[in-house]
Amino acid sequence: MSASQTQNHAADLSAMDRMLSPRSIALIGASNTAHRIGGLLFANLKRAFKGPLYPIHPTEQEIMGVQAYASLDDLPEAADLAVVAVAAKMVPEMVEAAAAAGIAGAVVVTSGFAEVGEEGAALQEQLAEISRRTGIRLIGPNCIGYFNMHGGVMANFAITPDSPLPKAGGTALVSQSGGFGSYISLMAMRAGLGVGWFVSTGNEVDCNVSMVCRHLIERPEVKVLLACVETLRDPDIFIETAERAIELDKPIVLLKAGRSEEAARAAMSHTGSITGSADVLYAVCEQYGVHIAETMQEMLDLGLMFETGKRTKGRRLAVLTTSGGAGVLLTDEAAEVGLTVPELPAEEQAALEAVMPPPFFGSMANPLDTTAQIVAHQHAAVGIMEHLGKSPSIDMITCVTWDHTLDFIQALIDGDKGTDKPVSILCTGLVEKVSEAGTPLYLDPSRAVRPLGALARQSLDRPKVVKAPVKDEARIARMRALFESLEGRKVLMEHEGKQLFAEYGIPVTREKLVATPADADAAAAEIGGKVAIKYMSPELMHKSDVGGLRLGLEAGSVQAEAEAMLQDVARGAPHVALSGILVQEMVPARMELTCGIKRDLSFGPIIVVGMGGVLVEVLAEVAMLRPPFDADMARKVVASLCDGRIASARRGLEPAEIDAVVATVMGLGQMALELPEISEVDVNPVRIANGRAVAADALVILEGAEDAGHH
Amino acid sequence: MSASQTQNHAADLSAMDRMLSPRSIALIGASNTAHRIGGLLFANLKRAFKGPLYPIHPTEQEIMGVQAYASLDDLPEAADLAVVAVAAKMVPEMVEAAAAAGIAGAVVVTSGFAEVGEEGAALQEQLAEISRRTGIRLIGPNCIGYFNMHGGVMANFAITPDSPLPKAGGTALVSQSGGFGSYISLMAMRAGLGVGWFVSTGNEVDCNVSMVCRHLIERPEVKVLLACVETLRDPDIFIETAERAIELDKPIVLLKAGRSEEAARAAMSHTGSITGSADVLYAVCEQYGVHIAETMQEMLDLGLMFETGKRTKGRRLAVLTTSGGAGVLLTDEAAEVGLTVPELPAEEQAALEAVMPPPFFGSMANPLDTTAQIVAHQHAAVGIMEHLGKSPSIDMITCVTWDHTLDFIQALIDGDKGTDKPVSILCTGLVEKVSEAGTPLYLDPSRAVRPLGALARQSLDRPKVVKAPVKDEARIARMRALFESLEGRKVLMEHEGKQLFAEYGIPVTREKLVATPADADAAAAEIGGKVAIKYMSPELMHKSDVGGLRLGLEAGSVQAEAEAMLQDVARGAPHVALSGILVQEMVPARMELTCGIKRDLSFGPIIVVGMGGVLVEVLAEVAMLRPPFDADMARKVVASLCDGRIASARRGLEPAEIDAVVATVMGLGQMALELPEISEVDVNPVRIANGRAVAADALVILEGAEDAGHH
Repeated sequence: MSASQTQNHAADLSAMDRMLSPRSIALIGASNTAHRIGGLLFANLKRAFKGPLYPIHPTEQEIMGVQAYASLDDLPEAADLAVVAVAAKMVPEMVEAAAAAGIAGAVVVTSGFAEVGEEGAALQEQLAEISRRTGIRLIGPNCIGYFNMHGGVMANFAITPDSPLPKAGGTALVSQSGGFGSYISLMAMRAGLGVGWFVSTGNEVDCNVSMVCRHLIERPEVKVLLACVETLRDPDIFIETAERAIELDKPIVLLKAGRSEEAARAAMSHTGSITGSADVLYAVCEQYGVHIAETMQEMLDLGLMFETGKRTKGRRLAVLTTSGGAGVLLTDEAAEVGLTVPELPAEEQAALEAVMPPPFFGSMANPLDTTAQIVAHQHAAVGIMEHLGKSPSIDMITCVTWDHTLDFIQALIDGDKGTDKPVSILCTGLVEKVSEAGTPLYLDPSRAVRPLGALARQSLDRPKVVKAPVKDEARIARMRALFESLEGRKVLMEHEGKQLFAEYGIPVTREKLVATPADADAAAAEIGGKVAIKYMSPELMHKSDVGGLRLGLEAGSVQAEAEAMLQDVARGAPHVALSGILVQEMVPARMELTCGIKRDLSFGPIIVVGMGGVLVEVLAEVAMLRPPFDADMARKVVASLCDGRIASARRGLEPAEIDAVVATVMGLGQMALELPEISEVDVNPVRIANGRAVAADALVILEGAEDAGHH
Repeated sequence: MSASQTQNHAADLSAMDRMLSPRSIALIGASNTAHRIGGLLFANLKRAFKGPLYPIHPTEQEIMGVQAYASLDDLPEAADLAVVAVAAKMVPEMVEAAAAAGIAGAVVVTSGFAEVGEEGAALQEQLAEISRRTGIRLIGPNCIGYFNMHGGVMANFAITPDSPLPKAGGTALVSQSGGFGSYISLMAMRAGLGVGWFVSTGNEVDCNVSMVCRHLIERPEVKVLLACVETLRDPDIFIETAERAIELDKPIVLLKAGRSEEAARAAMSHTGSITGSADVLYAVCEQYGVHIAETMQEMLDLGLMFETGKRTKGRRLAVLTTSGGAGVLLTDEAAEVGLTVPELPAEEQAALEAVMPPPFFGSMANPLDTTAQIVAHQHAAVGIMEHLGKSPSIDMITCVTWDHTLDFIQALIDGDKGTDKPVSILCTGLVEKVSEAGTPLYLDPSRAVRPLGALARQSLDRPKVVKAPVKDEARIARMRALFESLEGRKVLMEHEGKQLFAEYGIPVTREKLVATPADADAAAAEIGGKVAIKYMSPELMHKSDVGGLRLGLEAGSVQAEAEAMLQDVARGAPHVALSGILVQEMVPARMELTCGIKRDLSFGPIIVVGMGGVLVEVLAEVAMLRPPFDADMARKVVASLCDGRIASARRGLEPAEIDAVVATVMGLGQMALELPEISEVDVNPVRIANGRAVAADALVILEGAEDAGHH
């Protein structure tokens, strides 16, 4: 970030601060009619705001008992925030006036902009232009507003003025969709989350989900960020936010609508913007430690756990139940999210049994099945929770019961408060009591365990923030010279691609480009063992169709085969000119991988590694990384293929082979950063056997190539 | 089924009928103390039962105002059902007395049997013996009882006498675990399901989940069966039940606890029984049309949809929302469960827009985004629901809204009642109204769609019931002669396995077993092309380690190579005696699959087909089938590999190759039925290229082989 950028950033932050944590608020379009949006908004604003409110109305003296002003010019000060709820056509004029009046930002709830066609889009472009020119920050249009309970700002009509006020808790919710976002915030409050912040971004003419998240992640009161997007705009800001979240250890949970192709089409028609692939977004989230929620429910479940602020030191879960059957189901769920339910040591089991009234018919092995016997014995419940809270054998606790008395549930809640280990509870009675106490409560056994898995990931697997590595300018110059030597050609020949690969430390086949069949034989002798010969020409795409490829040759027979090859190609593809004969070692393969660089519409160059060979499309098993990344991350991603079996299963990758694949992935990452003019790279196959992983082919395409050129 | 078996089956059913739909009930261990189990049970029994109740008590004259009896001998008639709630040690005596008194069945709720160790297990074995000897049917011990609201039988203490009575609806719930089962029944009732039946089977000394399901599936009032198991006993009865469910079009939804290895261990210690693999159980469920629920919530969600009794004619979903954002999320979910959200034809869109008050800013393309505008216009909601109910372009409807008025929600409910298309609703207000109307209501957008996917499977993908094919007795005799010729050897040599395969129509490599190197050369000439030669001996397991395998030979050079091979093996494995030299065509392979027979502890022989070759364990991509099955089912399962990409992706299976793989799978299925003495078959690899799929190796192991013998 340059100095002037830093300054702008600070100015932006300060404008964002004024807009989202205002000291004074003007409502443009205020109304005395309670059920109109201008009435709902003002009634809401009045509920919790401690600073001055300035309702703007052309004729009324008062709005709901508060002095009204005919225009912004009449205000005693420049308000920090303007809420705009006038008809769409009047919005640009009002926003212009707000900017002129020194207002930092405006929340435009009005609909009728880009979502309704050309006329609306033109209106929205006016807003964009005003914001760019004057620096006024905008939220919306076509949003449902926001609330910031820490600042007492209820600048929204998501919540009706007669509903209870949200708690000023540690959860922040940011949603592109206003309607869906208000539903989520409602359900979140019902689930017991303290939604201290809710921002809906609507059409995102200026502020988008990424920007709002970037702002909120720095707020000290925000402990967890829930984001719900259809179209992720400003992916770089999203990544910067994720990196800050790593540094601050604040979890982000993302719910993405529009994963499937059909839904992406629906989202496109709905939000009017094209977006990158959902697979890439998910991979980026994984890389940057952002939690993905598959459903709204899962987002809320994770939020509830993260809001406790607790972290875990390990993955060992104690399952405490009054029913063996539930214990088994919870153990399944634990396994599914990477937690273990280890049997407790005999002495701990004995200690736990000792607190139960004899005779004890349950089990303290883990799952701990106390049977319903425990319900009437609070001291036993207290004793067990205390023991588990301190046990060196487990790291977190889930309690599942449908037998309940106040005393029993209280013992579980106290157990949670008395330990820094994370605790989740499933119970059917006294739900509000548990919820008020702040202990995460779930009504489905599966849901009681998954958030603990997410907490383990947040606590134990948080990635490092990787800074972009230094670029090798000399190498860049050499590569640019190579590209220039192509004289406009955009697709590299195999031997050119290999030269590029070698520069980036990607292991390639031993090979030599020669001019004549006689030279080919000499090259084969030099390479040793069996070789392949390939007819190189930029015009020849499918060389094996015309006999331009011979496999399994040995020195001595190569010259004759090369001559035959030249004749075959001359017959089969007479227009083609020979650039050279590539003589290449034959490498054995127990396994073939594919590596490469592809471009995502949102995130730019992405490194891909997957199961390769002829079955690449059948297997469709790939992992992705956004550069920059470090070797640990590359290794983790390579080893994650096939659910980790690529490294663990019989005939999987050996350590030296993993090293070579990691070198390939690292090389591609550096290449993507140094040479943005590369639009696509395919290293397929990477042939793997006997401790080697070698690029056996190379496809490199530069920007500006025609799509049809290479497949 | 033989005639006598049929008779027993009928007698069993009749005893089951008397036990589960009794005309009179005795309670052994009745109590006047309300909070004791004998008190809870009697209070519950009194709530709904119309026939005579006979409380048994040694001294009391009355139990809760009903005449008591000192013993079963004093009853005026043989009661149909005895509920037993006395101390564990007294239970065998009481059950014996019940049998003697002509009582058809007993529900034993008492704990302290097999779940608490040896002494309890011995008591439980006494119960088993009494049941076998006298024919009295038993549910439990260590269960929470059952209820049958259609018969007014509340023979349980899952529900307290002061809770509302369950509705006599179309859902039947069967759970091995009493505690978890009662939780599920409670949550089911809260979700609006009509749980007309709930049976907990506990330790399953006689009746198990399979048997109870087998009984209930025939009951006319049962529309959907929810089953929750840890250990599935009597898998054959489970399959028979699934087949009847197919014939009757009654969905079964299964929730299995103990899927992971760790959980299976917990279940084993908890229920005391070993079980087959969860993967096999899931594959069997898929094959027999049983729906799998991953979570309790999903089981209830599916139950709610199935209880409507509606079916669908297609997979085209209309998504009706007041928020574009939710529409996108629902479209994602639809894609995930195999439904489509097709754009409506222009004329339908125009007709739908015409019912909305102008100006209309939403979209009727599908997802239909009415915007919140619709909430105040009941006639528009009615019009849209009527249109969708009749539209030829869609098959089911999901309505998602958090804007609500009574009129608006009523329009959705009426829309559901007015069409035979399935409808699901998500709303936040008036939840009870929707629930009472019987329209499936879900609170998470994802959950509103998944049950429609399950309904589509039930309606459109219900499998056929396949009867066992005729056995080929002559072939069986030939194969048994082959097995006898092995003289006790349990592992077939490759050429013997291939002989077996060929008999079952499994395509194999062209090959010939010869005695000498000279004969090998002649055989190679006969086979043509390139060949492999293999040293055959029952004692030589890893032939390639000692040079017992040569590849890529051509006639003329085979004799010399074979001689060298014999010398190498003589040196490397001097104890081994030659059975012959197998000369085999070399077959190319673009892809390798693996097929085979494995034995499951529960379901017996299972046919496996998956991605093969050296990466079989890395890819771990397999599908399974229980024989018998027909060719359509085999084809479906083969084509399902790699999420269907095995047939659809570039370089995937061609039609002739699929035919050959299906022939292999069908052959293995028939083999497993005809030759139960085969314990394992591995056809790995099946080499596939150029329209052929050929077994290139063969491992066949007969029952009684030592485990260590073959790997």
